[in-house]
Amino acid sequence: MLAEIITIGDEILIGQIVDTNSAWMAQELNAIGIRVKQISSVSDDKQHILNALKEATGRADIVFITGGLGPTKDDITKKTLAEYFGVGMVENAEALENVTSIFKRYNRPLLEVNKQQALVPENCEVILNKNGTAPGMWFNKNGKIYVSMPGVPFEMMYMMEEQVLPKIKSVAQLPVIIHKTILTVGEGESFLAERIADIEDALPPYIKLAYLPKLGMVRLRLSGYGEVEESLLREKIEEYASKIIERVGNVVAATEDITLEQAIMNNMAAKGLTLSIAESCTGGYISHLFTQHPGSSRVFLGGTVSYSNDLKESILGVEHQTIVQYGAVSKETATEMVEGALRNFKSDYAIAVTGIAGPDGGTLEKPVGTVWIAVASAQQTIVKLFNFNNKRKQVIERSAISALGLLNSLLNK
Amino acid sequence: MLAEIITIGDEILIGQIVDTNSAWMAQELNAIGIRVKQISSVSDDKQHILNALKEATGRADIVFITGGLGPTKDDITKKTLAEYFGVGMVENAEALENVTSIFKRYNRPLLEVNKQQALVPENCEVILNKNGTAPGMWFNKNGKIYVSMPGVPFEMMYMMEEQVLPKIKSVAQLPVIIHKTILTVGEGESFLAERIADIEDALPPYIKLAYLPKLGMVRLRLSGYGEVEESLLREKIEEYASKIIERVGNVVAATEDITLEQAIMNNMAAKGLTLSIAESCTGGYISHLFTQHPGSSRVFLGGTVSYSNDLKESILGVEHQTIVQYGAVSKETATEMVEGALRNFKSDYAIAVTGIAGPDGGTLEKPVGTVWIAVASAQQTIVKLFNFNNKRKQVIERSAISALGLLNSLLNK
Repeated sequence: MLAEIITIGDEILIGQIVDTNSAWMAQELNAIGIRVKQISSVSDDKQHILNALKEATGRADIVFITGGLGPTKDDITKKTLAEYFGVGMVENAEALENVTSIFKRYNRPLLEVNKQQALVPENCEVILNKNGTAPGMWFNKNGKIYVSMPGVPFEMMYMMEEQVLPKIKSVAQLPVIIHKTILTVGEGESFLAERIADIEDALPPYIKLAYLPKLGMVRLRLSGYGEVEESLLREKIEEYASKIIERVGNVVAATEDITLEQAIMNNMAAKGLTLSIAESCTGGYISHLFTQHPGSSRVFLGGTVSYSNDLKESILGVEHQTIVQYGAVSKETATEMVEGALRNFKSDYAIAVTGIAGPDGGTLEKPVGTVWIAVASAQQTIVKLFNFNNKRKQVIERSAISALGLLNSLLNK
Repeated sequence: MLAEIITIGDEILIGQIVDTNSAWMAQELNAIGIRVKQISSVSDDKQHILNALKEATGRADIVFITGGLGPTKDDITKKTLAEYFGVGMVENAEALENVTSIFKRYNRPLLEVNKQQALVPENCEVILNKNGTAPGMWFNKNGKIYVSMPGVPFEMMYMMEEQVLPKIKSVAQLPVIIHKTILTVGEGESFLAERIADIEDALPPYIKLAYLPKLGMVRLRLSGYGEVEESLLREKIEEYASKIIERVGNVVAATEDITLEQAIMNNMAAKGLTLSIAESCTGGYISHLFTQHPGSSRVFLGGTVSYSNDLKESILGVEHQTIVQYGAVSKETATEMVEGALRNFKSDYAIAVTGIAGPDGGTLEKPVGTVWIAVASAQQTIVKLFNFNNKRKQVIERSAISALGLLNSLLNK
């Protein structure tokens, strides 16, 4: 079954908001075996919306439309859908009751414009919006399904989870889609591709391999489509995943769809190990990478962002003389930072990063992008120099990824 | 001038990544007077890409294509563009030189598959990729422009900023668009709208006012379109901006298009003030917000991510008895954290945040989303309780924004 998503509204087209709805919807749809063929963002313009509906109908079996359901003049989705289906509008009692009760709850007067939220195209089935005043709508026409939902993320998500997805499952015959992701670190896309070329060439037609590179990492994703029985599909996917993992095992960080920092935390949590982090030029970003994930407190004890030299000395115990003699961005300072973190924060492992993120602060000897990264356990300290020839944001991001890579290899030694 | 954006690749369609590129591109294009008509995400499928190109060409003057330029088999953008234009492929010397030098810099052997990155459709003008091996491409056909760029965000961004946008400006007749942004904090969109309703009603037809709300902040953006002379346009925009700033001055944090943390740093730098941050549940995110910006070291001395109670005591000097008696998430602990940061990190101002980000760790008394935020100077400490009824990511983000808002009001007292 193929789906398309159409988002309506100028906010996305002027870049005011990032369209996070579509990615979420695509994930949910993939999980139940519906592939998304195209995602289109179109403006609040009747003719443009009509064209988008026609094009999507030509390619997909089910079309999801979000946005344009508010009470103001530029919200024209409902009228446009009525025109598309060639029907009139009717007042829906359940939707009116919902709007009325929401306004009563907040003690606000119900304006005529709000009442109109209960008007819907007469061929639709109303999907109750438990979190807002705009009703969702479900249409059937010539064997195709259309679902219109509000663009407000949590209203849409709730509607999808509670009502739309169960309804789709009950009316449609869905195939199986299975994904398996392998996270690799420290090897380029083309080198990986060469190493596993024969495995890729031998894949059956119902399994596709995708390379998803991102800053020093490449995700290998095997996707199987249900042309064969589900158990066989699972078996085949696992078979080819195992072949790949065996072949490039030295760079595999995870065999599920998680981030590198999650893989590291899972690994450390399983062994009961703890981590602390001493950041300078990365300014809290590495700590944030870990702590954004649930359960990070099992592993991550804490750390410091020692931007000033004073704090490198007072919190981490870096010797004043070290900074004077070698500079804050040096092998010696990085080493004392990481060993200070181990000692003062009482963790099993530690990361330290000191560098010049720029755009100022570079010199001929130490240009912007010069970064020393250290990782350590009680047994061993590894310190490495990196030169990221980049702008500030990338220096920070690349430093963080490199630090994770170093820690990952120290853990797997 | 109308533009369309086509993103190519399955990652977006299966929801593995959120399409942040398009929003960024749309913002940049709008800023130079180009409206985006549609954004489409399509799969790695030749026929589908050809159709998308044809449809976009029918609606727009310039078509931006991102993604599908990697060295592996599923990257088919280049071949598909050559087919669309009915041309063959040629090796581009400059692109080959770029690939070769990148591989040389990293001491990696140049594979045949990498050399192929220098192959481009013969009717294109190559746009050098200073941050990666896949060249960008610029095409002209029947009066329309096509620009193909890598999907890796920072490669695309630099290409756009340094080469594509200047080139568009040099070849296209663009209208004058002038934007002026006022950042407000702590007042809702509808309340702001009511306070400045008469100013908004009096705007000339060539100046539009947009409300751009985001998590506790509202950006007011005045946009002037070149129906009058540029100097008059500038003058009029400034005139109305001044009226708005005067009217809602109590909630204005910045009168240019910068973030709240940048506004705070500019304000503190001008007064020679320094800042330190003691984070618990925000896990480094607030420090990262500040340190992502150039020049943050003028103001930000550093801080700590004291996830464990031990570190709250050892680094910040929170009393063991305070944590035992009131808990780590309490007014008392937040107060001792912020005052410990001021004292130990020797800054003029400090922020401290302690809370329960979830999904675990909540209790009946202190459910997930309970967050205490403190800001302090030598003269004054403000501590405030927040209840963010949200998921982990949102709790972290809302805590950070609320901490910035509190610090901003303490600074402006």
